[in-house]
Amino acid sequence: MITISIIGSGNVAQHLIQAFTKSENIRLLQVYSRTKNNVTHLLDLDCIVDDFENLLPVDLCIIAVSDDAIAKVAAQLPFKNTLVVHTSGAKSLDILNHDNRKGVFYPLQTFSKNKAIDFKTIPICLEATTIADMLLLKKVAHSISESVYEINSQQRKSLHVAAVFVCNFTNHLYQIGAEICKENELSFEILKPLIAETAQKVMTLSPQEAQTGPAKRNDAETIASHIHFLSHENQKNIYQLLTQSIIDNGKKL
Amino acid sequence: MITISIIGSGNVAQHLIQAFTKSENIRLLQVYSRTKNNVTHLLDLDCIVDDFENLLPVDLCIIAVSDDAIAKVAAQLPFKNTLVVHTSGAKSLDILNHDNRKGVFYPLQTFSKNKAIDFKTIPICLEATTIADMLLLKKVAHSISESVYEINSQQRKSLHVAAVFVCNFTNHLYQIGAEICKENELSFEILKPLIAETAQKVMTLSPQEAQTGPAKRNDAETIASHIHFLSHENQKNIYQLLTQSIIDNGKKL
Repeated sequence: MITISIIGSGNVAQHLIQAFTKSENIRLLQVYSRTKNNVTHLLDLDCIVDDFENLLPVDLCIIAVSDDAIAKVAAQLPFKNTLVVHTSGAKSLDILNHDNRKGVFYPLQTFSKNKAIDFKTIPICLEATTIADMLLLKKVAHSISESVYEINSQQRKSLHVAAVFVCNFTNHLYQIGAEICKENELSFEILKPLIAETAQKVMTLSPQEAQTGPAKRNDAETIASHIHFLSHENQKNIYQLLTQSIIDNGKKL
Repeated sequence: MITISIIGSGNVAQHLIQAFTKSENIRLLQVYSRTKNNVTHLLDLDCIVDDFENLLPVDLCIIAVSDDAIAKVAAQLPFKNTLVVHTSGAKSLDILNHDNRKGVFYPLQTFSKNKAIDFKTIPICLEATTIADMLLLKKVAHSISESVYEINSQQRKSLHVAAVFVCNFTNHLYQIGAEICKENELSFEILKPLIAETAQKVMTLSPQEAQTGPAKRNDAETIASHIHFLSHENQKNIYQLLTQSIIDNGKKL
Protein backbone atom coordinates (compact mmCIF):
# COMPACT_ATOMS: atom_id res chain seq x y z
CA MET A 1 0.00 0.00 0.00
CA ILE A 2 1.42 3.39 -1.04
CA THR A 3 0.76 6.21 1.41
CA ILE A 4 0.26 9.75 0.17
CA SER A 5 -0.64 13.18 1.46
CA ILE A 6 -2.09 16.07 -0.49
CA ILE A 7 -1.35 19.74 0.21
CA GLY A 8 -4.15 22.04 -0.88
CA SER A 9 -7.92 22.27 -1.07
CA GLY A 10 -8.59 23.97 -4.42
CA ASN A 11 -10.10 22.46 -7.59
CA VAL A 12 -7.24 20.11 -8.43
CA ALA A 13 -6.73 19.03 -4.81
CA GLN A 14 -10.42 18.26 -4.37
CA HIS A 15 -10.61 16.18 -7.53
CA LEU A 16 -7.44 14.29 -6.54
CA ILE A 17 -8.82 13.64 -3.04
CA GLN A 18 -11.99 12.16 -4.55
CA ALA A 19 -10.01 10.01 -7.00
CA PHE A 20 -7.55 8.66 -4.40
CA THR A 21 -10.31 7.99 -1.87
CA LYS A 22 -11.81 5.56 -4.40
CA SER A 23 -8.46 3.95 -5.29
CA GLU A 24 -7.72 0.57 -3.72
CA ASN A 25 -3.91 0.64 -3.89
CA ILE A 26 -3.40 4.05 -2.35
CA ARG A 27 -3.91 5.18 1.20
CA LEU A 28 -4.59 8.93 1.36
CA LEU A 29 -3.20 9.50 4.84
CA GLN A 30 -3.62 13.25 5.24
CA VAL A 31 -4.71 16.43 3.51
CA TYR A 32 -3.30 19.82 4.46
CA SER A 33 -5.76 22.67 4.15
CA ARG A 34 -5.39 26.11 5.71
CA THR A 35 -9.16 26.10 6.06
CA LYS A 36 -10.30 22.66 7.21
CA ASN A 37 -13.89 23.37 6.17
CA ASN A 38 -12.90 23.32 2.48
CA VAL A 39 -12.50 19.55 2.52
CA THR A 40 -14.62 18.27 5.44
CA HIS A 41 -17.26 17.12 2.89
CA LEU A 42 -14.65 14.82 1.32
CA LEU A 43 -12.68 13.42 4.30
CA ASP A 44 -12.85 12.45 7.95
CA LEU A 45 -11.85 15.36 10.14
CA ASP A 46 -8.91 13.43 11.67
CA CYS A 47 -7.27 13.19 8.19
CA ILE A 48 -7.21 16.97 7.77
CA VAL A 49 -4.40 19.10 9.15
CA ASP A 50 -3.93 22.86 9.08
CA ASP A 51 -0.37 22.91 10.48
CA PHE A 52 2.54 21.63 8.36
CA GLU A 53 4.20 20.26 11.53
CA ASN A 54 1.38 17.71 11.87
CA LEU A 55 2.09 16.06 8.49
CA LEU A 56 3.13 12.41 8.93
CA PRO A 57 5.81 10.63 6.84
CA VAL A 58 4.42 9.28 3.54
CA ASP A 59 5.69 7.66 0.33
CA LEU A 60 4.50 10.60 -1.78
CA CYS A 61 3.45 14.15 -1.00
CA ILE A 62 1.43 15.91 -3.71
CA ILE A 63 1.43 19.72 -3.61
CA ALA A 64 -1.77 20.82 -5.39
CA VAL A 65 -1.80 24.56 -4.74
CA SER A 66 -1.69 27.62 -7.02
CA ASP A 67 1.54 28.01 -9.00
CA ASP A 68 2.72 30.98 -6.95
CA ALA A 69 2.37 29.13 -3.63
CA ILE A 70 4.25 25.91 -4.57
CA ALA A 71 7.76 27.02 -3.52
CA LYS A 72 6.58 28.47 -0.22
CA VAL A 73 4.62 25.32 0.63
CA ALA A 74 7.49 23.02 -0.38
CA ALA A 75 9.84 24.88 1.95
CA GLN A 76 7.56 24.28 4.95
CA LEU A 77 7.24 20.49 4.70
CA PRO A 78 8.49 18.86 7.93
CA PHE A 79 10.21 15.86 6.28
CA LYS A 80 13.33 15.16 4.20
CA ASN A 81 14.21 12.80 1.33
CA THR A 82 10.52 12.18 0.63
CA LEU A 83 9.20 12.22 -2.95
CA VAL A 84 7.40 15.58 -3.28
CA VAL A 85 5.63 16.52 -6.51
CA HIS A 86 3.65 19.50 -7.73
CA THR A 87 0.69 19.41 -10.11
CA SER A 88 1.48 22.45 -12.26
CA GLY A 89 1.76 22.45 -16.02
CA ALA A 90 3.69 25.70 -16.01
CA LYS A 91 6.25 25.39 -13.22
CA SER A 92 9.69 23.81 -13.24
CA LEU A 93 10.48 20.84 -11.04
CA ASP A 94 13.25 22.95 -9.53
CA ILE A 95 10.95 25.25 -7.60
CA LEU A 96 10.49 22.38 -5.14
CA ASN A 97 12.65 22.30 -1.98
CA HIS A 98 16.04 20.58 -2.29
CA ASP A 99 15.57 18.71 1.01
CA ASN A 100 13.18 16.31 -0.74
CA ARG A 101 13.17 14.23 -3.95
CA LYS A 102 11.43 16.16 -6.73
CA GLY A 103 8.82 15.30 -9.30
CA VAL A 104 5.76 16.48 -11.23
CA PHE A 105 2.29 14.94 -11.29
CA TYR A 106 0.37 17.03 -13.83
CA PRO A 107 -3.22 16.03 -14.63
CA LEU A 108 -4.06 17.60 -18.00
CA GLN A 109 -7.67 18.61 -17.49
CA THR A 110 -9.89 21.59 -16.70
CA PHE A 111 -11.30 21.29 -13.21
CA SER A 112 -14.31 23.18 -11.91
CA LYS A 113 -15.56 22.80 -8.38
CA ASN A 114 -19.16 22.04 -9.25
CA LYS A 115 -18.53 19.63 -12.09
CA ALA A 116 -17.84 15.96 -11.37
CA ILE A 117 -15.25 14.30 -13.57
CA ASP A 118 -14.13 10.76 -14.36
CA PHE A 119 -10.44 10.72 -13.44
CA LYS A 120 -9.87 7.46 -15.36
CA THR A 121 -9.78 9.31 -18.69
CA ILE A 122 -7.53 12.17 -17.56
CA PRO A 123 -3.97 12.07 -18.92
CA ILE A 124 -1.47 12.33 -16.06
CA CYS A 125 1.93 13.67 -17.11
CA LEU A 126 4.81 12.55 -14.91
CA GLU A 127 8.34 13.79 -14.36
CA ALA A 128 10.92 12.53 -11.86
CA THR A 129 14.68 12.62 -11.36
CA THR A 130 15.27 8.90 -10.78
CA ILE A 131 13.89 5.70 -12.29
CA ALA A 132 12.67 4.52 -8.88
CA ASP A 133 10.72 7.72 -8.31
CA MET A 134 9.21 7.52 -11.81
CA LEU A 135 8.08 3.95 -11.06
CA LEU A 136 6.41 5.07 -7.84
CA LEU A 137 4.67 7.96 -9.65
CA LYS A 138 3.48 5.61 -12.39
CA LYS A 139 1.95 3.24 -9.81
CA VAL A 140 0.13 6.12 -8.16
CA ALA A 141 -1.01 7.62 -11.46
CA HIS A 142 -2.23 4.27 -12.82
CA SER A 143 -4.27 3.78 -9.65
CA ILE A 144 -6.55 6.66 -10.70
CA SER A 145 -6.08 7.01 -14.50
CA GLU A 146 -5.83 4.81 -17.57
CA SER A 147 -3.78 7.43 -19.38
CA VAL A 148 -0.29 8.01 -17.95
CA TYR A 149 2.56 9.75 -19.79
CA GLU A 150 6.22 10.25 -18.93
CA ILE A 151 7.13 13.65 -20.36
CA ASN A 152 10.01 16.09 -19.89
CA SER A 153 9.78 19.71 -18.72
CA GLN A 154 9.88 21.18 -22.23
CA GLN A 155 7.07 18.87 -23.37
CA ARG A 156 5.03 19.68 -20.27
CA LYS A 157 5.39 23.38 -20.99
CA SER A 158 4.27 22.85 -24.59
CA LEU A 159 1.26 20.86 -23.38
CA HIS A 160 0.33 23.64 -20.99
CA VAL A 161 0.41 26.15 -23.84
CA ALA A 162 -1.55 23.80 -26.12
CA ALA A 163 -4.10 23.35 -23.32
CA VAL A 164 -4.60 27.12 -23.14
CA PHE A 165 -5.52 27.10 -26.84
CA VAL A 166 -7.83 24.07 -26.86
CA CYS A 167 -9.43 24.72 -23.47
CA ASN A 168 -9.21 28.28 -22.12
CA PHE A 169 -9.37 30.05 -25.49
CA THR A 170 -12.00 27.64 -26.83
CA ASN A 171 -14.16 28.33 -23.79
CA HIS A 172 -13.77 32.05 -24.45
CA LEU A 173 -15.05 31.50 -28.00
CA TYR A 174 -18.05 29.70 -26.47
CA GLN A 175 -18.60 32.80 -24.38
CA ILE A 176 -18.54 35.08 -27.41
CA GLY A 177 -21.09 32.72 -29.01
CA ALA A 178 -23.25 33.02 -25.88
CA GLU A 179 -22.99 36.84 -25.98
CA ILE A 180 -24.02 36.96 -29.65
CA CYS A 181 -27.01 34.72 -28.85
CA LYS A 182 -28.03 36.90 -25.90
CA GLU A 183 -27.85 40.11 -27.91
CA ASN A 184 -30.14 38.55 -30.52
CA GLU A 185 -32.61 37.04 -28.06
CA LEU A 186 -31.60 33.47 -28.77
CA SER A 187 -30.95 30.79 -26.19
CA PHE A 188 -27.36 29.52 -25.86
CA GLU A 189 -29.01 26.05 -25.91
CA ILE A 190 -29.25 26.29 -29.69
CA LEU A 191 -25.42 26.29 -29.99
CA LYS A 192 -24.81 23.32 -27.68
CA PRO A 193 -25.21 20.49 -30.23
CA LEU A 194 -22.76 22.30 -32.52
CA ILE A 195 -20.24 22.74 -29.69
CA ALA A 196 -20.54 19.07 -28.75
CA GLU A 197 -20.17 17.86 -32.34
CA THR A 198 -17.19 20.17 -33.04
CA ALA A 199 -15.32 18.56 -30.14
CA GLN A 200 -16.58 15.09 -31.05
CA LYS A 201 -15.37 15.38 -34.64
CA VAL A 202 -11.69 15.68 -33.69
CA MET A 203 -11.90 12.47 -31.69
CA THR A 204 -11.92 10.64 -35.06
CA LEU A 205 -10.85 13.22 -37.68
CA SER A 206 -7.77 15.45 -37.54
CA PRO A 207 -8.57 19.16 -36.92
CA GLN A 208 -7.29 19.74 -40.46
CA GLU A 209 -9.87 17.33 -41.89
CA ALA A 210 -12.61 18.63 -39.60
CA GLN A 211 -12.24 22.31 -40.56
CA THR A 212 -15.34 23.84 -42.19
CA GLY A 213 -16.74 27.35 -42.57
CA PRO A 214 -16.36 30.55 -44.60
CA ALA A 215 -12.63 30.98 -43.83
CA LYS A 216 -11.87 27.43 -44.94
CA ARG A 217 -13.78 28.08 -48.19
CA ASN A 218 -12.20 31.56 -48.43
CA ASP A 219 -15.74 32.87 -48.91
CA ALA A 220 -14.95 36.60 -48.99
CA GLU A 221 -18.57 37.74 -49.22
CA THR A 222 -19.72 35.88 -46.08
CA ILE A 223 -16.59 36.90 -44.16
CA ALA A 224 -17.18 40.59 -45.01
CA SER A 225 -20.84 40.38 -44.01
CA HIS A 226 -19.92 38.72 -40.67
CA ILE A 227 -17.33 41.40 -39.86
CA HIS A 228 -19.88 44.06 -40.73
CA PHE A 229 -22.46 42.31 -38.52
CA LEU A 230 -20.24 42.24 -35.40
CA SER A 231 -20.71 45.38 -33.32
CA HIS A 232 -17.94 44.87 -30.72
CA GLU A 233 -14.45 45.89 -31.81
CA ASN A 234 -12.96 43.04 -29.80
CA GLN A 235 -15.11 40.41 -31.53
CA LYS A 236 -14.27 41.91 -34.93
CA ASN A 237 -10.53 41.67 -34.16
CA ILE A 238 -10.79 38.04 -33.06
CA TYR A 239 -12.90 37.20 -36.12
CA GLN A 240 -10.37 38.77 -38.49
CA LEU A 241 -7.27 37.25 -36.88
CA LEU A 242 -8.64 33.70 -36.71
CA THR A 243 -10.14 33.92 -40.21
CA GLN A 244 -6.79 35.05 -41.63
CA SER A 245 -5.04 32.25 -39.74
CA ILE A 246 -7.37 29.62 -41.24
CA ILE A 247 -6.91 31.10 -44.74
CA ASP A 248 -3.10 31.20 -44.38
CA ASN A 249 -3.15 27.66 -43.07
CA GLY A 250 -5.06 26.52 -46.15
CA LYS A 251 -2.39 28.09 -48.38
CA LYS A 252 0.36 26.10 -46.63
CA LEU A 253 -1.24 22.78 -47.64
CA MET B 1 -47.56 12.03 -46.32
CA ILE B 2 -45.49 15.11 -47.21
CA THR B 3 -43.48 14.82 -50.42
CA ILE B 4 -40.13 16.55 -50.76
CA SER B 5 -37.24 16.83 -53.14
CA ILE B 6 -33.67 17.82 -52.35
CA ILE B 7 -31.39 19.75 -54.71
CA GLY B 8 -27.70 19.04 -54.11
CA SER B 9 -25.31 16.27 -53.18
CA GLY B 10 -22.80 17.93 -50.83
CA ASN B 11 -22.37 17.41 -47.08
CA VAL B 12 -25.66 18.98 -45.98
CA ALA B 13 -27.64 17.34 -48.80
CA GLN B 14 -26.23 13.90 -48.02
CA HIS B 15 -27.02 14.17 -44.31
CA LEU B 16 -30.55 15.39 -45.10
CA ILE B 17 -31.09 12.52 -47.54
CA GLN B 18 -30.07 10.02 -44.86
CA ALA B 19 -32.32 11.65 -42.26
CA PHE B 20 -35.40 11.86 -44.51
CA THR B 21 -34.93 8.32 -45.79
CA LYS B 22 -35.39 7.12 -42.19
CA SER B 23 -38.36 9.42 -41.48
CA GLU B 24 -41.82 7.84 -41.57
CA ASN B 25 -43.90 10.93 -42.35
CA ILE B 26 -41.90 12.20 -45.26
CA ARG B 27 -41.54 10.80 -48.72
CA LEU B 28 -38.27 11.86 -50.33
CA LEU B 29 -39.42 11.73 -53.93
CA GLN B 30 -36.35 12.92 -55.80
CA VAL B 31 -32.83 14.22 -55.41
CA TYR B 32 -31.20 16.44 -58.02
CA SER B 33 -27.47 15.92 -58.40
CA ARG B 34 -25.36 17.10 -61.33
CA THR B 35 -23.28 13.99 -60.77
CA LYS B 36 -25.60 11.07 -60.04
CA ASN B 37 -22.73 9.00 -58.61
CA ASN B 38 -22.47 11.33 -55.59
CA VAL B 39 -25.66 9.93 -54.10
CA THR B 40 -26.12 6.45 -55.61
CA HIS B 41 -24.91 4.94 -52.31
CA LEU B 42 -27.85 6.61 -50.53
CA LEU B 43 -30.77 6.26 -52.96
CA ASP B 44 -32.31 4.14 -55.70
CA LEU B 45 -31.14 5.30 -59.10
CA ASP B 46 -34.68 6.12 -60.28
CA CYS B 47 -34.99 8.77 -57.52
CA ILE B 48 -31.96 10.68 -58.78
CA VAL B 49 -32.23 13.27 -61.55
CA ASP B 50 -29.54 15.36 -63.23
CA ASP B 51 -31.89 17.57 -65.24
CA PHE B 52 -34.05 20.17 -63.53
CA GLU B 53 -36.84 19.53 -66.07
CA ASN B 54 -37.28 16.03 -64.63
CA LEU B 55 -38.19 17.28 -61.15
CA LEU B 56 -41.75 16.29 -60.21
CA PRO B 57 -44.20 18.47 -58.23
CA VAL B 58 -43.69 18.18 -54.44
CA ASP B 59 -44.93 19.82 -51.23
CA LEU B 60 -41.44 21.09 -50.38
CA CYS B 61 -38.24 21.53 -52.36
CA ILE B 62 -35.05 21.89 -50.27
CA ILE B 63 -32.10 23.56 -52.00
CA ALA B 64 -28.97 22.30 -50.20
CA VAL B 65 -26.18 23.67 -52.37
CA SER B 66 -23.31 26.09 -51.71
CA ASP B 67 -24.38 29.65 -50.89
CA ASP B 68 -23.23 31.04 -54.21
CA ALA B 69 -25.27 28.53 -56.24
CA ILE B 70 -28.64 28.96 -54.47
CA ALA B 71 -30.04 31.77 -56.65
CA LYS B 72 -29.00 30.08 -59.88
CA VAL B 73 -30.55 26.77 -58.84
CA ALA B 74 -33.76 28.42 -57.63
CA ALA B 75 -34.20 30.10 -61.00
CA GLN B 76 -34.07 26.78 -62.84
CA LEU B 77 -36.78 24.93 -60.92
CA PRO B 78 -39.54 23.79 -63.33
CA PHE B 79 -42.51 24.50 -61.00
CA LYS B 80 -44.36 27.52 -59.59
CA ASN B 81 -46.04 28.38 -56.25
CA THR B 82 -44.23 25.51 -54.54
CA LEU B 83 -42.60 26.00 -51.14
CA VAL B 84 -38.86 26.24 -51.87
CA VAL B 85 -36.34 26.66 -49.05
CA HIS B 86 -32.58 26.95 -48.82
CA THR B 87 -30.37 25.60 -46.01
CA SER B 88 -27.95 28.50 -45.63
CA GLY B 89 -27.22 30.33 -42.41
CA ALA B 90 -25.78 33.29 -44.27
CA LYS B 91 -28.16 33.98 -47.14
CA SER B 92 -31.38 35.97 -47.22
CA LEU B 93 -34.67 34.34 -48.05
CA ASP B 94 -34.98 36.82 -50.92
CA ILE B 95 -32.30 35.21 -53.07
CA LEU B 96 -34.88 32.51 -53.88
CA ASN B 97 -36.91 32.85 -57.08
CA HIS B 98 -40.15 34.86 -56.85
CA ASP B 99 -42.11 32.25 -58.82
CA ASN B 100 -42.20 30.02 -55.73
CA ARG B 101 -43.06 30.45 -52.02
CA LYS B 102 -39.90 31.12 -50.03
CA GLY B 103 -38.46 29.79 -46.82
CA VAL B 104 -35.33 28.75 -44.94
CA PHE B 105 -34.54 25.36 -43.44
CA TYR B 106 -31.18 25.87 -41.69
CA PRO B 107 -29.72 22.94 -39.75
CA LEU B 108 -27.21 24.42 -37.30
CA GLN B 109 -24.45 21.83 -37.35
CA THR B 110 -21.02 21.08 -38.79
CA PHE B 111 -21.27 18.36 -41.40
CA SER B 112 -18.37 16.28 -42.65
CA LYS B 113 -18.78 13.64 -45.28
CA ASN B 114 -17.11 10.83 -43.37
CA LYS B 115 -18.69 11.47 -39.99
CA ALA B 116 -22.12 10.06 -39.20
CA ILE B 117 -24.40 12.28 -37.16
CA ASP B 118 -27.64 11.92 -35.21
CA PHE B 119 -30.00 14.39 -36.85
CA LYS B 120 -32.44 14.21 -33.90
CA THR B 121 -30.26 16.52 -31.81
CA ILE B 122 -29.57 19.07 -34.53
CA PRO B 123 -31.37 22.42 -34.13
CA ILE B 124 -33.27 23.27 -37.30
CA CYS B 125 -33.94 26.99 -37.74
CA LEU B 126 -36.98 27.83 -39.83
CA GLU B 127 -38.17 30.90 -41.65
CA ALA B 128 -41.25 31.30 -43.87
CA THR B 129 -43.47 34.08 -45.21
CA THR B 130 -46.86 32.62 -44.25
CA ILE B 131 -48.21 30.75 -41.24
CA ALA B 132 -49.24 27.81 -43.43
CA ASP B 133 -45.74 27.46 -44.87
CA MET B 134 -44.21 27.68 -41.39
CA LEU B 135 -46.54 24.88 -40.25
CA LEU B 136 -45.46 22.69 -43.15
CA LEU B 137 -41.76 23.39 -42.43
CA LYS B 138 -42.28 22.57 -38.74
CA LYS B 139 -43.85 19.22 -39.62
CA VAL B 140 -40.95 18.37 -41.90
CA ALA B 141 -38.32 19.55 -39.39
CA HIS B 142 -39.92 17.67 -36.50
CA SER B 143 -39.88 14.50 -38.57
CA ILE B 144 -36.07 14.45 -38.37
CA SER B 145 -35.17 16.60 -35.32
CA GLU B 146 -36.32 17.13 -31.75
CA SER B 147 -35.01 20.68 -31.77
CA VAL B 148 -36.89 23.07 -34.07
CA TYR B 149 -36.73 26.88 -33.86
CA GLU B 150 -38.66 29.60 -35.66
CA ILE B 151 -36.17 32.45 -36.09
CA ASN B 152 -36.03 35.60 -38.21
CA SER B 153 -33.35 36.55 -40.74
CA GLN B 154 -31.42 38.77 -38.33
CA GLN B 155 -31.33 36.02 -35.70
CA ARG B 156 -30.25 33.46 -38.29
CA LYS B 157 -27.39 35.70 -39.34
CA SER B 158 -26.33 36.13 -35.72
CA LEU B 159 -26.44 32.35 -35.24
CA HIS B 160 -24.29 31.85 -38.29
CA VAL B 161 -21.69 34.27 -36.91
CA ALA B 162 -21.86 32.64 -33.46
CA ALA B 163 -21.41 29.24 -35.12
CA VAL B 164 -18.21 30.46 -36.78
CA PHE B 165 -16.83 31.32 -33.32
CA VAL B 166 -17.88 28.15 -31.47
CA CYS B 167 -17.23 25.73 -34.33
CA ASN B 168 -14.87 26.92 -37.09
CA PHE B 169 -12.62 29.04 -34.87
CA THR B 170 -12.67 26.47 -32.07
CA ASN B 171 -11.60 23.77 -34.50
CA HIS B 172 -8.75 26.03 -35.62
CA LEU B 173 -7.61 26.31 -31.98
CA TYR B 174 -7.66 22.50 -31.85
CA GLN B 175 -5.41 22.54 -34.87
CA ILE B 176 -2.95 24.92 -33.22
CA GLY B 177 -2.95 22.56 -30.22
CA ALA B 178 -2.21 19.65 -32.57
CA GLU B 179 0.66 21.60 -34.18
CA ILE B 180 2.21 22.42 -30.79
CA CYS B 181 1.98 18.74 -29.83
CA LYS B 182 3.60 17.64 -33.09
CA GLU B 183 6.48 20.09 -32.75
CA ASN B 184 7.17 18.73 -29.27
CA GLU B 185 6.85 15.05 -30.20
CA LEU B 186 3.62 14.54 -28.29
CA SER B 187 0.54 12.75 -29.55
CA PHE B 188 -2.59 14.84 -30.12
CA GLU B 189 -4.35 12.02 -28.23
CA ILE B 190 -3.16 13.56 -24.97
CA LEU B 191 -5.30 16.69 -25.60
CA LYS B 192 -8.52 14.85 -26.50
CA PRO B 193 -9.92 14.36 -22.97
CA LEU B 194 -9.37 18.07 -22.31
CA ILE B 195 -11.12 19.03 -25.56
CA ALA B 196 -14.06 16.75 -24.74
CA GLU B 197 -14.39 18.04 -21.17
CA THR B 198 -14.12 21.70 -22.24
CA ALA B 199 -17.13 21.20 -24.52
CA GLN B 200 -18.92 19.05 -21.94
CA LYS B 201 -18.57 21.68 -19.21
CA VAL B 202 -20.66 24.29 -21.03
CA MET B 203 -23.53 21.82 -21.35
CA THR B 204 -24.19 22.43 -17.62
CA LEU B 205 -22.16 25.55 -16.68
CA SER B 206 -22.21 28.91 -18.47
CA PRO B 207 -18.99 29.66 -20.41
CA GLN B 208 -18.44 32.45 -17.85
CA GLU B 209 -18.51 29.94 -14.98
CA ALA B 210 -16.45 27.41 -16.90
CA GLN B 211 -13.56 29.76 -17.73
CA THR B 212 -10.20 28.71 -16.24
CA GLY B 213 -6.54 29.35 -17.06
CA PRO B 214 -3.79 31.97 -16.75
CA ALA B 215 -5.77 34.75 -18.49
CA LYS B 216 -8.75 34.24 -16.17
CA ARG B 217 -6.39 34.44 -13.15
CA ASN B 218 -4.52 37.34 -14.80
CA ASP B 219 -1.32 35.35 -14.13
CA ALA B 220 1.16 37.67 -15.85
CA GLU B 221 4.19 35.45 -15.27
CA THR B 222 2.68 32.37 -16.95
CA ILE B 223 1.23 34.45 -19.81
CA ALA B 224 4.65 36.01 -20.50
CA SER B 225 6.36 32.62 -20.43
CA HIS B 226 3.78 31.16 -22.85
CA ILE B 227 4.20 34.03 -25.30
CA HIS B 228 7.95 33.60 -25.09
CA PHE B 229 7.56 29.85 -25.67
CA LEU B 230 5.52 30.22 -28.87
CA SER B 231 7.74 30.37 -31.94
CA HIS B 232 5.16 31.20 -34.64
CA GLU B 233 4.21 34.87 -34.93
CA ASN B 234 0.64 33.92 -35.81
CA GLN B 235 0.22 31.77 -32.68
CA LYS B 236 1.70 34.56 -30.55
CA ASN B 237 -0.82 37.06 -31.98
CA ILE B 238 -3.77 34.75 -31.34
CA TYR B 239 -2.51 34.02 -27.80
CA GLN B 240 -2.19 37.73 -27.01
CA LEU B 241 -5.53 38.80 -28.47
CA LEU B 242 -7.56 36.04 -26.80
CA THR B 243 -5.72 36.47 -23.48
CA GLN B 244 -6.44 40.21 -23.51
CA SER B 245 -10.08 39.52 -24.37
CA ILE B 246 -10.45 37.15 -21.38
CA ILE B 247 -8.76 39.67 -19.07
CA ASP B 248 -10.96 42.55 -20.31
CA ASN B 249 -14.00 40.37 -19.94
CA GLY B 250 -13.10 39.67 -16.30
CA LYS B 251 -12.89 43.43 -15.66
CA LYS B 252 -16.43 43.94 -16.96
CA LEU B 253 -17.89 41.67 -14.26
